[in-house]
Amino acid sequence: MMVDVPQLVAQAREGRPRAVARLISLVEGASPQLREVMAALAPLTGGAYVVGLTGSPGVGKSTSTSALVTAYRKAGRRVGVLAVDPSSPFSGGALLGDRVRMSEHASDPGVYIRSMATRGHLGGLAWAAPQAIRVLDAAGCDVVLVETVGVGQSEVEIASQADTSVVLLAPGMGDGIQAAKAGILEIGDVYVVNKADRDGADATARELNHMLGLGESRAPGDWRPPIVKTVAARAQGVDEVVAALEKHRAWMEERGVLAERRARRAAHEVETIAVTALRERIGDLGGDRRLDALAERIVAGELDPYAAADELVAGLTGD
Amino acid sequence: MMVDVPQLVAQAREGRPRAVARLISLVEGASPQLREVMAALAPLTGGAYVVGLTGSPGVGKSTSTSALVTAYRKAGRRVGVLAVDPSSPFSGGALLGDRVRMSEHASDPGVYIRSMATRGHLGGLAWAAPQAIRVLDAAGCDVVLVETVGVGQSEVEIASQADTSVVLLAPGMGDGIQAAKAGILEIGDVYVVNKADRDGADATARELNHMLGLGESRAPGDWRPPIVKTVAARAQGVDEVVAALEKHRAWMEERGVLAERRARRAAHEVETIAVTALRERIGDLGGDRRLDALAERIVAGELDPYAAADELVAGLTGD
Repeated sequence: MMVDVPQLVAQAREGRPRAVARLISLVEGASPQLREVMAALAPLTGGAYVVGLTGSPGVGKSTSTSALVTAYRKAGRRVGVLAVDPSSPFSGGALLGDRVRMSEHASDPGVYIRSMATRGHLGGLAWAAPQAIRVLDAAGCDVVLVETVGVGQSEVEIASQADTSVVLLAPGMGDGIQAAKAGILEIGDVYVVNKADRDGADATARELNHMLGLGESRAPGDWRPPIVKTVAARAQGVDEVVAALEKHRAWMEERGVLAERRARRAAHEVETIAVTALRERIGDLGGDRRLDALAERIVAGELDPYAAADELVAGLTGD
Repeated sequence: MMVDVPQLVAQAREGRPRAVARLISLVEGASPQLREVMAALAPLTGGAYVVGLTGSPGVGKSTSTSALVTAYRKAGRRVGVLAVDPSSPFSGGALLGDRVRMSEHASDPGVYIRSMATRGHLGGLAWAAPQAIRVLDAAGCDVVLVETVGVGQSEVEIASQADTSVVLLAPGMGDGIQAAKAGILEIGDVYVVNKADRDGADATARELNHMLGLGESRAPGDWRPPIVKTVAARAQGVDEVVAALEKHRAWMEERGVLAERRARRAAHEVETIAVTALRERIGDLGGDRRLDALAERIVAGELDPYAAADELVAGLTGD
């Protein structure tokens, strides 16, 4: 069924949650009207401040996100939350258990919360999340919080979709090397040591400070990522996180960094969409008899995968 | 400098580690001779049994891999190890700390160990690892152990490159929901609860058994993934893991599952290489002035990312 896109977008602008939900479903599901929706949203975007929150399981991301929502709502801001769940690539379902913690905001018309499962194929997540952010932006959210489990490559990519990236840690979550292995330590503009009422919080903050070289001198005007200690479950330190975010935002705006980041993000987004489109064409090409036939020849040792890929690409681009 | 590929391949077949290292570097580095190397390797592949080992940081993957190497060496098998480190996408370097545990095998000519860092771009890892596996296969390894940190999408993809996937757990590594979130639980053909001398090992095994529905009845002939308890640091239970692997291999061979898996893997590999090639063309096309110009128009709200991607793709395929 075709949707009246201009009407839906107008309703989303008025803050109607069902219209927002419908738009996100349209962009998530690669609807035939996807392009129409994206074209309608384009002139309405750019107003939202996008904050990424990432960290290993157990650091208290959902609780921290919820506390930030409360803080921003007190300041009168409209808030969108995109919670990205790395579900199993095989079952396709998201584990929404800890979304329940967000339920306190469920009846607040100034908050829109959406969970999104990662897809089972490469690039699936990177493809859908930026579009959902655009919907929330166009719907008039002042702040969009994107919460991800920051352990894999695709999660790091999502974090890079944000204007400001917050990396959350908690005391006793494993030693520094293990954290660094997860590949998320270097992406933070703001670091939060949550559960700071537990033993080891100061040690975690110190170790982080050391690993990030925060004690070293920097060029004047460079951003020095702050480390904020919080107990999100009791809203302790959350105002300090908001203050750090606003400071980072102001710093980016002053120096043109925000426009640069957004341009880089848009370029990456375009590239991802283009690659996804080409990938789909390969799938169509394969059909998949052709790809299967190539695969069998590879298993038999008659063909190498590069020669097989050349055949596929030639069929696509008419080389 | 051009390399004498046939000579290098012949030396690798003789088990010369420097030739193997050189070949992996050639396929990793996207050398101009990459296609020549892959073509030369193709008829020599298919002999190796590829075992993927994955699990969260701290479960003892390196120790388990090392213990498996010892067990296979005792049985006279030549073993290749590919250790995939999810390094930071920004620094590009792999953290090789725990590779040191493998040093006991460093002087054994029947063992080839290679570390590989994940790349900073989508698909980078998925692209390089299968080629390195092909080199080890062609070099005459009877068994190739691929060790990855199984937390992100790309690690799951690597695990899917294996003939048999081993998922490692350890007691007290977080509750079941958190483990399931990591998205690795469902990919195992064999499960190992390592550090089984610690409290909670039985509970972890029981919980796993429950989550996987292993107690439920299955169709006759279906594979029922075993759960093996080990203390890899003392080599306890390692022979049982090898026995479980061999049993799975025999089961796959009997039922034609091995050939099916390998064909699916090859098809996926071809697709990934083709997409990477197309992606590179986009990068070349952009050059990157064109992509940057599109990105600026998106940030200004003049264009949406899909329309921009259409422009890029049209330039590529001549639509």
